[in-house]
Amino acid sequence: MKINKNYLNLEASYLFSTIANKVKAYSEANPGKHIIKLGIGDVTLPLCKDVVIAMERAVLEMGVQDTFRGYGPEQGYDFLKTPIKEYYSKHNVSLDIDEIFISDGAKSDLGNILDLFDTDNTVLVQDPVYPVYVDTNIMAGRKIKYLNSNAENGFLPLPTENDKADIIYLCSPNNPTGAVYNKEQLKQWVDFALENNSIILFDAAYECFISDETLPRSIFEIEGAKKCAIEFCSFSKTAGFTGTRCGYTVVPKDLVYEDTMINKLWLRRQTTKFNGVPYIVQKGAAAIFTENGQKEIMENINYYKENAKIITDALDKLGIWYTGGTNSPYIWLKCPNGMKSWEFFDYLLNNVQIVGTPGSGFGENGEGYFRLTSFGSRENTIEAMDRLLKHSLANV
Amino acid sequence: MKINKNYLNLEASYLFSTIANKVKAYSEANPGKHIIKLGIGDVTLPLCKDVVIAMERAVLEMGVQDTFRGYGPEQGYDFLKTPIKEYYSKHNVSLDIDEIFISDGAKSDLGNILDLFDTDNTVLVQDPVYPVYVDTNIMAGRKIKYLNSNAENGFLPLPTENDKADIIYLCSPNNPTGAVYNKEQLKQWVDFALENNSIILFDAAYECFISDETLPRSIFEIEGAKKCAIEFCSFSKTAGFTGTRCGYTVVPKDLVYEDTMINKLWLRRQTTKFNGVPYIVQKGAAAIFTENGQKEIMENINYYKENAKIITDALDKLGIWYTGGTNSPYIWLKCPNGMKSWEFFDYLLNNVQIVGTPGSGFGENGEGYFRLTSFGSRENTIEAMDRLLKHSLANV
Repeated sequence: MKINKNYLNLEASYLFSTIANKVKAYSEANPGKHIIKLGIGDVTLPLCKDVVIAMERAVLEMGVQDTFRGYGPEQGYDFLKTPIKEYYSKHNVSLDIDEIFISDGAKSDLGNILDLFDTDNTVLVQDPVYPVYVDTNIMAGRKIKYLNSNAENGFLPLPTENDKADIIYLCSPNNPTGAVYNKEQLKQWVDFALENNSIILFDAAYECFISDETLPRSIFEIEGAKKCAIEFCSFSKTAGFTGTRCGYTVVPKDLVYEDTMINKLWLRRQTTKFNGVPYIVQKGAAAIFTENGQKEIMENINYYKENAKIITDALDKLGIWYTGGTNSPYIWLKCPNGMKSWEFFDYLLNNVQIVGTPGSGFGENGEGYFRLTSFGSRENTIEAMDRLLKHSLANV
Repeated sequence: MKINKNYLNLEASYLFSTIANKVKAYSEANPGKHIIKLGIGDVTLPLCKDVVIAMERAVLEMGVQDTFRGYGPEQGYDFLKTPIKEYYSKHNVSLDIDEIFISDGAKSDLGNILDLFDTDNTVLVQDPVYPVYVDTNIMAGRKIKYLNSNAENGFLPLPTENDKADIIYLCSPNNPTGAVYNKEQLKQWVDFALENNSIILFDAAYECFISDETLPRSIFEIEGAKKCAIEFCSFSKTAGFTGTRCGYTVVPKDLVYEDTMINKLWLRRQTTKFNGVPYIVQKGAAAIFTENGQKEIMENINYYKENAKIITDALDKLGIWYTGGTNSPYIWLKCPNGMKSWEFFDYLLNNVQIVGTPGSGFGENGEGYFRLTSFGSRENTIEAMDRLLKHSLANV
């Protein structure tokens, strides 16, 4: 038996384990110090009440003969797909219900979708990048091209002739930079994809953080996108589902390559290699879309957005350059005084006991940058920024 | 963008939709008739009490700040992996905890595992076969060899020189035939795999139906299997989790091909393309392994096993040949009087209003055979067999 040797080309990622080790070492050497973690992308607020009630009910249903549910549709229940369809229509995107596929999260489907595409396709990702886009394509042996995302282009690069590729990843609001494409910029990407017969894999996992009504939450707000894009979304950040696992993928029926409907290929993939998301979890996700559910999750999202404002206010006072923070849970800052990413990591840990993520962990263009997240508690976020402000960074 | 053209080689499976259409047509033409469905592989009993209680608690935990859980380990929580490890040790199989990976079901992992293997490998499946083994390999463009499983070999074929292949699928207790390999037979497969550097993908989804203590529940009961096999199991049939979605995959650390530990490759695959099973669901699954949980699920399994006995007793009286039914939820019978599978399907539907699955839907060797399942209700199973016995099949 021959293994898939592409796996041997994967680089081991030590980013988060290195962070954990450094934090552990510091913590052991300085047992009295309170370390504040603003590095990871996981949420901290619990599930909202309506989601809990809906899941409790669903659990009880599963224990009673008459309401027990066995195998559900692999592509998800209509009781969840219907409110998602309505959510899109509020943003002027009209979808058919069979263009929506319920998933166990954006990460799974972002990897699994690649099943449908020839390994001979070239892939375009931005640097810095969410590592999953890169690793899943290395696993399949695809050629990867990198597009510079940097301060000059505001971490929102636009396509040029050099960037032609078959599969294009876009993430907006971006992880890790927090930058958000506007409609005109996204239109350039859609036109570029249509001209070059490319497909765009649009990661919309952070769309719920967009407050600016002029910014697109979905690529399907852009004309022509249904002919060249698949959208991945998740309830992880929208409703704190990181440990509950539910999201959705939108595959328009207008998406046709080599005379083949991608929607049909995906349905075939899912019915063959997937058995759907738990009934209980889908019931919980559906509760997000009730009037009260929407109110509750907006309270949580606003809590994180206020955290982001606390962080960006502090950075403004300190004169530190950043992207994100307004329509995104991530704040991507330039390390002060020309420090490198890991240098700044050590500096913050040692001087103010704040943990963030070194930008260089997301790619070469991340060097000299640093990611903070707004997913911490209010108390910790305030305390961390107080420490930053009190500790004059001029000392660096 | 070029699609994965292997998908175009998939044959559309109309098996279950054809059944549904025939049943619908009959039902509309004969509105008064009570149709009994013993065709599908879905369970009918609700989740047992301890599982419900555990999931209720977990749902409540998720709604409270202090007990909320975000991202969990992709490979599953130790609170579930530990009792699985203990379950194996009861059957004299010693596993390390990091050889166990919690999945959202055997079907997902049976498809996803193929990521790790070169597309150039040849695949051996048995005919009749669970269609997922075939389709997932067609999607990847692998060459598939078929091994005849038939009445002559008791639907338990053993390997010969002609059957050399890189990837070998075994399912025992078998779907669809219900046949179960004994240790000596399984040893032949393990030796064959070791000799030929093959890997066995062992589908143990129905292991809980084995009552005969001499029959192996796990391929790892066979010496040498840890060097050549991966095992897939599921709580779908064990505890009625078809709509709750949880299973596990055992990848031994001794499994090494081309100097590469398959366990490490799988961990890399799962951490990159998967985000774990919902905390709530894992808590429910862990409750299966408590003393009371085991008692409760055994009651359910015995309920289905008694259904199987009711079916096989009737077949015995009618002198109909079958496999399965004793250590399996499936009964695989030879259609009486030389009828073909679909002929017998129509005959049963029209004369006694019983719905089963035509064996020809599982492969060429299934022609002339028919699958019944024990997953119906007791009442329906008794009623169906009464009808069969009263309706002298001599009339056929």
